Amino acid sequence: MKRDDPRLVAVGAKAEGIGRAPAQRDAKESAPPGRFGLEASLMRRLLRSLGDPPLRVTLWNGESMATGTEEPVAHIRIASRVSLLKLLVNPELHFGDGYSDGSIEVDGDLVKLMEVVYRGMARASFSGSMLRMGGRAGRRRTNTLSSSRSNIHHHYDLGNDFYRLWLDPEMVYTCAYFPAPEATLEEAQIAKMDHVCRKLRLRPEETVIEAGCGWGALAMHMATRYGVRVRAFNISREQIAYARERARALGVEGRVEFIEDDYRNIAGRCDAFVSVGMLEHVGVDNHEQLGRVIDACLDRDGRGLLHSIGRDRPAELNAWIEKRIFPGAYPPTLRQMLAIVEPWEFSVIDVENLRLHYALTLVHWMQRFEDARERVSGMYDERFVRAWRLYLAGSIAAFNTGALQLFQVLFVRRSSNEVPWSRSHLYDRRP
Amino acid sequence: MKRDDPRLVAVGAKAEGIGRAPAQRDAKESAPPGRFGLEASLMRRLLRSLGDPPLRVTLWNGESMATGTEEPVAHIRIASRVSLLKLLVNPELHFGDGYSDGSIEVDGDLVKLMEVVYRGMARASFSGSMLRMGGRAGRRRTNTLSSSRSNIHHHYDLGNDFYRLWLDPEMVYTCAYFPAPEATLEEAQIAKMDHVCRKLRLRPEETVIEAGCGWGALAMHMATRYGVRVRAFNISREQIAYARERARALGVEGRVEFIEDDYRNIAGRCDAFVSVGMLEHVGVDNHEQLGRVIDACLDRDGRGLLHSIGRDRPAELNAWIEKRIFPGAYPPTLRQMLAIVEPWEFSVIDVENLRLHYALTLVHWMQRFEDARERVSGMYDERFVRAWRLYLAGSIAAFNTGALQLFQVLFVRRSSNEVPWSRSHLYDRRP
Repeated sequence: MKRDDPRLVAVGAKAEGIGRAPAQRDAKESAPPGRFGLEASLMRRLLRSLGDPPLRVTLWNGESMATGTEEPVAHIRIASRVSLLKLLVNPELHFGDGYSDGSIEVDGDLVKLMEVVYRGMARASFSGSMLRMGGRAGRRRTNTLSSSRSNIHHHYDLGNDFYRLWLDPEMVYTCAYFPAPEATLEEAQIAKMDHVCRKLRLRPEETVIEAGCGWGALAMHMATRYGVRVRAFNISREQIAYARERARALGVEGRVEFIEDDYRNIAGRCDAFVSVGMLEHVGVDNHEQLGRVIDACLDRDGRGLLHSIGRDRPAELNAWIEKRIFPGAYPPTLRQMLAIVEPWEFSVIDVENLRLHYALTLVHWMQRFEDARERVSGMYDERFVRAWRLYLAGSIAAFNTGALQLFQVLFVRRSSNEVPWSRSHLYDRRP
Repeated sequence: MKRDDPRLVAVGAKAEGIGRAPAQRDAKESAPPGRFGLEASLMRRLLRSLGDPPLRVTLWNGESMATGTEEPVAHIRIASRVSLLKLLVNPELHFGDGYSDGSIEVDGDLVKLMEVVYRGMARASFSGSMLRMGGRAGRRRTNTLSSSRSNIHHHYDLGNDFYRLWLDPEMVYTCAYFPAPEATLEEAQIAKMDHVCRKLRLRPEETVIEAGCGWGALAMHMATRYGVRVRAFNISREQIAYARERARALGVEGRVEFIEDDYRNIAGRCDAFVSVGMLEHVGVDNHEQLGRVIDACLDRDGRGLLHSIGRDRPAELNAWIEKRIFPGAYPPTLRQMLAIVEPWEFSVIDVENLRLHYALTLVHWMQRFEDARERVSGMYDERFVRAWRLYLAGSIAAFNTGALQLFQVLFVRRSSNEVPWSRSHLYDRRP
């Protein structure tokens, strides 16, 4: 294709006519309006559909453009026409893939880049793909017993040694709770577990069921600090193996049972039902079933707590994250979460949104990840390192901009008056 | 009808066959099974559909029955066949009407009576009417601008002098917040207003819009204690007149504007949008519209708070309460409340359930109401006094048993990071 093809000029001119003001800088810094090649014009349209974030983009052919009214926060270099075309067809998926394989390079702050993109998308009501290949029908997600196992295996069985490099020593891989922003990650993960336990008002010798227990930190924390008995479920084989070994080392294997099984197979009774960071992998189609499981387990005066990444409005998970990082995942809205509790007539007594705590948690993880980069490179290829960096940076940005939320929902049975008079007990200073 | 009519015996015997155990006491205390008259048998079936609460019921003809396995908490006397038949057709409506006109009399604690009935109904999944006249299709509720005005007039324009007899001096007619159960009603209403203001993090010179302001207590509290400017809306003429006079007396008429208009007509911008105890009168059909109004008003870093009676599961309001006390009212579930915020992409940052505080608030109101009974009798007839007593007693029971909930939902715009780091500021002791 030649750059002076009149059809291409027309496309460029048309694109130029829409929402002119924020893109004025182009005129000064590169070819005059209407003189871009087709590829550059399409790139500019993509940036416009992203709400004209303050970015500079340079193509393989040297064409360069800056959008937004502020200084660009980062400079994106696109290495080839193929890479651009993929980006146009599925920007979410291919930005991730292109960044991972190096065909898209970023100079500047990756977190800030993702933040301006998320903010721009919210402004522009970004709808996914400019070219609408395949339309916007919701992605089909079937979290059956076996697909759930394979989805969970994909992410959580990457190797405990890898996660040990950048998680806290307790291996807590969910949003922390920072008593103050200056707290360390270690302190904040302990504080999160205590925050959850206080909300649940655990008493010695009570029985707790945990659905989706990760490497077992919360289960062991509850048993050792609150004197409860825990049955903790998880379908990640590596995590369960790690947790069992840890329980033996701590001498709590008599009080904490780690069970390699799906939440749908949970049975038995409990005083408290807790699930921290599993719901994202459950899917809204299974919410009522999860509620049924809780209803079957929870005692008359039992308490339940669900902690999950969420949304303000229903939306698919970022396509790249779902394809490469968390297959089968979907962050529900608070309203969708309530489909778990409403049919069983549980009373919601407290909801807290901790999204800024998750952003800060991720800042710590990303710092540790970068500090451990050489050791990660010894375990995985460069593509993996770059993908993981983007996942962490994008997640910081998503929580910082409100694209993602973090909800803790506490509930009891409707008939129970065993509820604290106020929430002040959560904020009492402890000796 | 004769009591020895064989068809009637059959009905009695059949009724006797269902769920025998809880009703054994009958046999000892009155006619043997199968020997009840038709009316008594039907009454027993009604009690069974209510989950066999521990009650004694005596009919006009002397037939008497006790249900439940515990001592009866109250003794209900039904004065006539007509009264019983009405009760069978529509128990909720006619228990209220019958108690109000004296054709149903209660010996014992009215609150305890209502509590055992609410608990029994929850156990038995009570479905309204035994005889299913007209079925269980949802009641039609149209809260148009004009019907809302007439519905609100019905309750809130009963006369300020009446409400003054039993509300606190600030005339707050919504759930209080008791820092401790021993607090006085006056203290608890002030504490509630402060709790709301702290959640909203009001700063001097900010602008607040209040939808449904009652007699104006919160609006004036916000203006005098938090230095904000308030525009407060209400369609109750008597309440608005009272509030304006109060604002003049306090010298805050320059900072608080009371506007006699519907929430649907609210316009203008604000830093905080608050609505305490109005949503019950809005109706779920209008939730999205209320959300649109809030979206149109709220600043970028604005905060919103909705305080409403609610439910764990969708259910019609008690038929008698809706017909005689609160026409057009419907307490939504938390999930239904979220239909106000989700379409506009507000972030819910905090939900608190205060139902036990509402039960205690109502205990105070009922005590004051009974203390003022003679003065109330000078204003209204006996039927009104009895109806009001039942409304207060039934409301205490509904909140104590979880038939009703009280939700405070706090939200901000998704894009706003102007949120407190934790909720501990709500529980800091003030100088």
